[in-house]
Amino acid sequence: MTDDYFHVLNLIGVAFFAVSGTLLGYEKKVGGFGVVVVASVTALGGGSLRDLLLNEPVFWVADPDYLYSTYAAIFISVAFIRYLPHVSNYYFLLLDAVGMAIFNIVGIEKSLIGETGMLIAITMGTTTGIFGGLIRDVICREVPSVMRGELYASACVAGGLVYAALFTLGAPYIWCILGALFATVFLRMGALHWNWRPKIFKKRHYTE
Amino acid sequence: MTDDYFHVLNLIGVAFFAVSGTLLGYEKKVGGFGVVVVASVTALGGGSLRDLLLNEPVFWVADPDYLYSTYAAIFISVAFIRYLPHVSNYYFLLLDAVGMAIFNIVGIEKSLIGETGMLIAITMGTTTGIFGGLIRDVICREVPSVMRGELYASACVAGGLVYAALFTLGAPYIWCILGALFATVFLRMGALHWNWRPKIFKKRHYTE
Amino acid sequence: MTDDYFHVLNLIGVAFFAVSGTLLGYEKKVGGFGVVVVASVTALGGGSLRDLLLNEPVFWVADPDYLYSTYAAIFISVAFIRYLPHVSNYYFLLLDAVGMAIFNIVGIEKSLIGETGMLIAITMGTTTGIFGGLIRDVICREVPSVMRGELYASACVAGGLVYAALFTLGAPYIWCILGALFATVFLRMGALHWNWRPKIFKKRHYTE
Repeated sequence: MTDDYFHVLNLIGVAFFAVSGTLLGYEKKVGGFGVVVVASVTALGGGSLRDLLLNEPVFWVADPDYLYSTYAAIFISVAFIRYLPHVSNYYFLLLDAVGMAIFNIVGIEKSLIGETGMLIAITMGTTTGIFGGLIRDVICREVPSVMRGELYASACVAGGLVYAALFTLGAPYIWCILGALFATVFLRMGALHWNWRPKIFKKRHYTE
Repeated sequence: MTDDYFHVLNLIGVAFFAVSGTLLGYEKKVGGFGVVVVASVTALGGGSLRDLLLNEPVFWVADPDYLYSTYAAIFISVAFIRYLPHVSNYYFLLLDAVGMAIFNIVGIEKSLIGETGMLIAITMGTTTGIFGGLIRDVICREVPSVMRGELYASACVAGGLVYAALFTLGAPYIWCILGALFATVFLRMGALHWNWRPKIFKKRHYTE
Repeated sequence: MTDDYFHVLNLIGVAFFAVSGTLLGYEKKVGGFGVVVVASVTALGGGSLRDLLLNEPVFWVADPDYLYSTYAAIFISVAFIRYLPHVSNYYFLLLDAVGMAIFNIVGIEKSLIGETGMLIAITMGTTTGIFGGLIRDVICREVPSVMRGELYASACVAGGLVYAALFTLGAPYIWCILGALFATVFLRMGALHWNWRPKIFKKRHYTE
């Protein structure tokens, strides 16, 4: 059962990130097929890094379904943009937040199955959640979202802590997933909406 | 025999990319030894990523010949530039195209030997072909070639499709290689020469 | 014994790089939790790449001590900066140099234990030494130190050659380490202080 959950969550996460990569590529006016490269790297980057670090077979090399999901999501969103070229930036941010929340959970789970302990699992979840988007932003020469000061990596970490708490309390599996998902997406979107910005250092202004 | 082909193609591809990295480093006025770093990363980056994703030993760690080839190509091209400082950008683009075409083939082959199926093999070929140059461009703070809108990743994919077609038709091994090589280099250089630009989205101007 | 040396050197190197990443994140006004991401990537990036290339288990996934060391170093340096916000750039450069020198040695050793031969070992040492900082600079959109023309990668290589020479002469283990450490840090800091710049190409001005 766990395997099925994994598979479906991973497929959805990959598709969400693929769409977010396509939208950013469109926004940044990336030319031609470069959009497919940006979108694929966004969709597959975080999970590939996770699997390499955990010394597991890389998910999309082991199972071509993930490539089908990625390419299908890219082609559908390209078709969509051709007919509705004025996509609001809000959808990009929401897709990115949900994709990040899903990958966060998959990363934590896969790490726990590898018996790494909770500290490494939460680090791995955050790594999986943020790296696809980070590589996307670096390639597109954007200021990486993770550097911007709105909750991003911290939303992942908070989601991971919710997961760990529910898991330790013995909550059913589905509640651990839903709790972590909700916490991550709520914190991320709330931070964007109400402009929450954790101040780690005192006396300085932060990048907008 | 296949192993020999691999070895020779890989050695040549590595040398071509090492020269292209040296030229870009020179062009971007990278200081001192940084040129060697840029050139090595260009030469070894794509193939290292391929081997990691395929869960194979990384080629240049398993066999020092590739490092000799890389360093020799770098030192020769540095010596060359010292005496002929006005290298045309055309050579950089040609070297990059041939290196990409060679790595594309090596990536596809290595992937097929690992029994991944054709879809993953073509993705892996393109990954191998474009990633060395992509990392080079990111480090040098250039707009990545892959984002520019002239055929680049699409030339790789087209070369991969030619390979797959010839392979399926039962063409001799050497023709699969030559056909894919020719298709990739022709599309890439033709796109630069005649300014072919695939338009995926309609209503927007693309980055030049 | 070798294992203990490794462990301690690695823990110190990780902490030094974590502090250097925190300082750069502060300097570049990275917002909120992004500082922790930058610092962690700096601390763990070079060693992770080394372990992946050598096909070894990634050090911080195999042993949570490295994460404790990283996070402790980050929190201490954040606390320090809150009360002493005017940190001189000199400390950043020194920490970066010592971290690089330590990772250089660890990379060479781990590579030699994997029986790769000296050429690959020195390449691997330099890779380990410079990649954490390189990823940090790319994420923070800085000109990477390695591109700047002051000795950086070359200081690593020189440290590696000192290690190889002492090792070949049969010097005691501790002298190999101290010799390589001293050579790398001295060359790096000397280059910054006296503005040593190797000129590989003749007729051009370099990036400052």
